[in-house]
Amino acid sequence: MYAEIISIGSEILQGQIIDTNANYIAKKLAKLNIEVKYISAVGDDDTLLFSLLKRAANRSTIIITTGGLGPTEDDITYQTIARALNLKLIKYPEAEKSLKNFLSKINMELSHSNLKQTYLPETAKIIINKYGTAPAMILEKDKCAICSLPGVPREMKKLLVENILPYLQEKFPSLTINKSRNLRITGLGESSVNELICDYIKEKTNLSFGIYAHPEDIQVQVTARATKEKEVDILLEEATNDLKSILGNYIFGYEKQSLAEVVGVLLKSKKLKIAIAESCTGGMLGELITRTPGSSDYFLGGIISYHSAIKKDLLNVPMEIISKYGEVSEQVAKLMAEGVRKCCQADIGLSITGIAGPGGATTQKKVGLVYMALADDKNTIFQKHQLFRGRQVIRLRATFRALNMLRIYLQNN
Amino acid sequence: MYAEIISIGSEILQGQIIDTNANYIAKKLAKLNIEVKYISAVGDDDTLLFSLLKRAANRSTIIITTGGLGPTEDDITYQTIARALNLKLIKYPEAEKSLKNFLSKINMELSHSNLKQTYLPETAKIIINKYGTAPAMILEKDKCAICSLPGVPREMKKLLVENILPYLQEKFPSLTINKSRNLRITGLGESSVNELICDYIKEKTNLSFGIYAHPEDIQVQVTARATKEKEVDILLEEATNDLKSILGNYIFGYEKQSLAEVVGVLLKSKKLKIAIAESCTGGMLGELITRTPGSSDYFLGGIISYHSAIKKDLLNVPMEIISKYGEVSEQVAKLMAEGVRKCCQADIGLSITGIAGPGGATTQKKVGLVYMALADDKNTIFQKHQLFRGRQVIRLRATFRALNMLRIYLQNN
Repeated sequence: MYAEIISIGSEILQGQIIDTNANYIAKKLAKLNIEVKYISAVGDDDTLLFSLLKRAANRSTIIITTGGLGPTEDDITYQTIARALNLKLIKYPEAEKSLKNFLSKINMELSHSNLKQTYLPETAKIIINKYGTAPAMILEKDKCAICSLPGVPREMKKLLVENILPYLQEKFPSLTINKSRNLRITGLGESSVNELICDYIKEKTNLSFGIYAHPEDIQVQVTARATKEKEVDILLEEATNDLKSILGNYIFGYEKQSLAEVVGVLLKSKKLKIAIAESCTGGMLGELITRTPGSSDYFLGGIISYHSAIKKDLLNVPMEIISKYGEVSEQVAKLMAEGVRKCCQADIGLSITGIAGPGGATTQKKVGLVYMALADDKNTIFQKHQLFRGRQVIRLRATFRALNMLRIYLQNN
Repeated sequence: MYAEIISIGSEILQGQIIDTNANYIAKKLAKLNIEVKYISAVGDDDTLLFSLLKRAANRSTIIITTGGLGPTEDDITYQTIARALNLKLIKYPEAEKSLKNFLSKINMELSHSNLKQTYLPETAKIIINKYGTAPAMILEKDKCAICSLPGVPREMKKLLVENILPYLQEKFPSLTINKSRNLRITGLGESSVNELICDYIKEKTNLSFGIYAHPEDIQVQVTARATKEKEVDILLEEATNDLKSILGNYIFGYEKQSLAEVVGVLLKSKKLKIAIAESCTGGMLGELITRTPGSSDYFLGGIISYHSAIKKDLLNVPMEIISKYGEVSEQVAKLMAEGVRKCCQADIGLSITGIAGPGGATTQKKVGLVYMALADDKNTIFQKHQLFRGRQVIRLRATFRALNMLRIYLQNN
């Protein structure tokens, strides 16, 4: 049983976008132990897509296509698949209904070009897309299943996971199981993580490991494979415990759980309210904290003190201190944390001030120098970091360091 | 003249790596106006690669392969290409010499498996790889040029740019020039943009168009093609002016220029300082504005008024107004904008308050309801939007709507 992935869209062939969809699908199919034999990309070109589909239907058991389901002229997937399989396009009333529903929710009306998205090949199993306008579909032809998904990554991922993968598991019950666990680590670099766990990795030949570096964290992915789900779960549970005993408190979370979420859970369980004061990050810390639904339980708000006058007027940092030590200093960071704690009547004040660059450096203070401070009712602590790699990465890393400072504080207090 | 890119390596098919090589090559070929018709990935599988190469040699003028040139068992590209073109593998002494050179530089000795990398198909033009062990090669067969590069991105890029592209330019002197322009549109949906410009697109057969939807904007990409650079520039200039007259003020910028940058340029030119008050976006507006280096010229800072107490204490929104109309209301949005303008001593105050969800909805106010307001020294204006598609997308869209409200204000005042 072989699978094949076809990405449709001229923007891939012209090098304008990287085809990350094919990678996502390949990964998901690998988890189900389905072997992908070909990945292809073609433009919005009826003739080429037609011949590729014909060839694919002859050689593969599963074909997954992405793209070309949109309302515009150059979107041809429904039509070309119909032609390749000798099927007529027919109107699907449920497609029109869901399309109207979707559009009304976003206050839009059905346009003439959208109507195209309601005509699918006859015999298609239509998959209603509640995340966008283009319905997905599954067609079975001889021994081949052709699954067509929209090209928008967000819609594609949802429909793949919610509809296509369950369909494949039901259609091919012999598939074995393969599960991964993701451990999220902060405060250590990629090579340090590697050095700490490399002996363990060598020893555990029945598991596979991957170490990946992100701006937010280092992720260690453990994968176990077995015929029964229970066996897989036991293997993963053991590996997680082993890695916990090696990496300890550097592990801040699991799977997709972000540092901001972990901090949120800690704040909520301790019934503490936080307020923030941001300079160089300009709102990034607040944005990350409030990404978590329900963050209003522990996040009061804060001050974006980009200009020194705001530090003075709203955070009550004396101008003399700013002049004497500079806006990027231990003293100002501490006073910002204390000031925002007070003016927002919070339990904890957290502040960041730094030089994100490219401008703003002095002979003593380089681009990437960041101070952060945390004030509670008794003490104010601070950290100093020298970060690298350009304005936006410096801002991201400063934000994550501040969140991690808060995490460690909450775990120890 | 068509090109085709073939990536060889099972790690792509298993979803372990994203095939960024194909994208890099496609981009470089697009600049030379070479049209890529197919991008394919196959595993380290002699039979599949053989049949793909046969098909490719029949349909394409240029084939570029990456991967499979290494020293291990599963690296099969030299052999399979030789077999597909009916050529013998012969020893290339210059390959052995450069391999020894390279290995001695990194203090390694020639191993038995490396020897494989010195046998290439007869008639191959060998390209010495000073960045790694695997030589690249060019083979000409009938009208087809087959260029094989290593899969390591760094080596591939160097050898492509230094050797393969110059070879192609010399071999095909007729290559024309191809340039694109990107128009960035906000305030209209993808299908509305399509409807407004579809007649123009049909009329202009000497240009090609693409319409792409992003959370920030809708992008229309116009591509012109001609033998001389000047002609291309004139065609693009004309198309830009035509589209401007159709889409007017919905176009906020060009190329990679973000909405926040456009707003920054306007604020700077008018010497205006802005302060912001954010509720549901929690800092996102500030983060986006301060992504631009030099934003301190026009951005003072602001208040993240996530909790109603912050709206009252720091923005001076009376509690009676909050109780009467709700935190998400025209009245509160306006008072937030006025309040932040005053407390930060800014020329303009900009505010956002909304229900990002999933919680917080009432019978009257649905998730996605967002109010935004803009206050200057004379007036306060507001907008109301019903947004959709989950917490983070609602927050993103609210932020971009607020930036666009500010853009329109600055253009009209």
